[in-house]
Amino acid sequence: MGEYYLGIDLGGTKIAGLIGDEQGKIIAEKTIPTLAEEGVEPVINRIKNIILELMGEVTPGQVKGIGLCAPGPLNIKTGEVMHAPNLKWKNVQIVGILEKEFGLPVILENDANAAGYGECIYGAGKGAVNMLYMTVSTGIGGGIIANGELVYGRDYCAGEVGHMIVLPGGPLCGCGQHGCIEALASGTAIARTARKRLEDGEQSIISDLVKGDINTVTSREVAEAARQGDQLAVSLLDEAFFYLGIAIGNLINILNPETIVIGGGVAKMGDLLFDRVSRVLQDHAFPHMVKGVSIVPAVLAGRAGTMGMVALVRKRLNS
Amino acid sequence: MGEYYLGIDLGGTKIAGLIGDEQGKIIAEKTIPTLAEEGVEPVINRIKNIILELMGEVTPGQVKGIGLCAPGPLNIKTGEVMHAPNLKWKNVQIVGILEKEFGLPVILENDANAAGYGECIYGAGKGAVNMLYMTVSTGIGGGIIANGELVYGRDYCAGEVGHMIVLPGGPLCGCGQHGCIEALASGTAIARTARKRLEDGEQSIISDLVKGDINTVTSREVAEAARQGDQLAVSLLDEAFFYLGIAIGNLINILNPETIVIGGGVAKMGDLLFDRVSRVLQDHAFPHMVKGVSIVPAVLAGRAGTMGMVALVRKRLNS
Repeated sequence: MGEYYLGIDLGGTKIAGLIGDEQGKIIAEKTIPTLAEEGVEPVINRIKNIILELMGEVTPGQVKGIGLCAPGPLNIKTGEVMHAPNLKWKNVQIVGILEKEFGLPVILENDANAAGYGECIYGAGKGAVNMLYMTVSTGIGGGIIANGELVYGRDYCAGEVGHMIVLPGGPLCGCGQHGCIEALASGTAIARTARKRLEDGEQSIISDLVKGDINTVTSREVAEAARQGDQLAVSLLDEAFFYLGIAIGNLINILNPETIVIGGGVAKMGDLLFDRVSRVLQDHAFPHMVKGVSIVPAVLAGRAGTMGMVALVRKRLNS
Repeated sequence: MGEYYLGIDLGGTKIAGLIGDEQGKIIAEKTIPTLAEEGVEPVINRIKNIILELMGEVTPGQVKGIGLCAPGPLNIKTGEVMHAPNLKWKNVQIVGILEKEFGLPVILENDANAAGYGECIYGAGKGAVNMLYMTVSTGIGGGIIANGELVYGRDYCAGEVGHMIVLPGGPLCGCGQHGCIEALASGTAIARTARKRLEDGEQSIISDLVKGDINTVTSREVAEAARQGDQLAVSLLDEAFFYLGIAIGNLINILNPETIVIGGGVAKMGDLLFDRVSRVLQDHAFPHMVKGVSIVPAVLAGRAGTMGMVALVRKRLNS
């Protein structure tokens, strides 16, 4: 009888659950809405329910442990989610609660780390021992794997690559700093700059794509316009991904990884992003470290977190 | 009978050797000139001689292993120094050579990593599990410790923190990039900017300190002038350490360390550097990660490399 591991990815809008075997083969899978607005207790009950339902699909005793990832800040040692604004959670001892409920070992992990570890073990970074995972979406986050282990830092906060400042005095970031790559290359930043330049009167088919309602422009319309050769859109992506390339170059020099996996909504732009980043890297990081590094799109999509937790539970139980 | 470990720090100008016990207590110590100009063989013989001399000071059999650190790039797995321009070494299998000579386990390490590990185990970062070591000197280098382990990267090149670009399009760096912190905050960069601004006619007591010979200005005179309140010198250090602070803030956000140890000639400026960097960090990194991080001067000075090798050999043999 094979040994199975159960991964839960607790997000602001949905709770994803998955049972995987030792090779990461998916045995059972389920996703439900989080309904965070109902409060802390109901969400915890929904987590318990999805676990119960998933366990019902395998032989009792086959699931050896449960791993849950959630937005930080959290403490993986004490098993506590300290503060998750999206969930309105404060100091929730989720590991203790689930261990008591199910009588199984339970571990907690930051969601970006879990997704990074998932991509490293089962996804686009398979085989890498030193890997950087970046999610470029409304924000920019990351997870770092060095020597085959997640890099946690003093209080499990390592990997905040989105707040690397590469343009001191640059645009204001949501974090209060200026010139972070999140303020230069995230979907939010690209859309904001697009809207500003359209308001300033620059001509672009982006306006047509939103039927003139400039306030609704997102990075998706910028990407679409760039694919059609629109000059404004091309220059917006050139600029955003120049800074993203600078940041990735810095991380290559600092971490010397084999693989960089980029996920998140903006990474779905594909070549529009990857080609530009690769071009920037040719002149903005040590050639011997850039050479041979694979910069690839994430492949696990919505499963990165749950698959990562399957891998992490398995590792914890076998170490 | 205590177990001893022998560390060698092979530098461009001198070879330092040291025998330490399990607690890092120094049992014997010796330093000789490298005389790299004599060629590869003579330098290897000098390394063998210093090892022999040091071993002669303890009971035969007490030294359990030898660790040597050298400038990179090198391969710690194969024990080979690939290329050390200062030493005119190319593809020297130093580990094999020394193992054959002494019949003991020998390990090789990058010198910045060794110094960082030395500071982490026996020096200013004692007790840290996540530590960043930076040497700010003619260049800027580093070593990263995460989860208690050195971060190596794919080809043992991780830790090139000096080539983090924080000012795209900024001054040209020796590495060929523009706006690396090495080109903004190293001793070389500070001296170069000082000379330029003096040549441009700015008034400063720096000129007096070098008796009018502007070409001989180093970062030492800039520091001395800044201590005396010289306006040009103060503005030079404000600018250089602003960028150093930005880079350190980025590294705090990425690595979330407990301790940052700064060594090298420029760090000897003391408060002139540490106060400025601390001020910059207040506004340029996540407050919860900056809070509680110790940014401290290195304490092992010339012994950081040898002590680091003692710690690394000991660790390797006991793991």
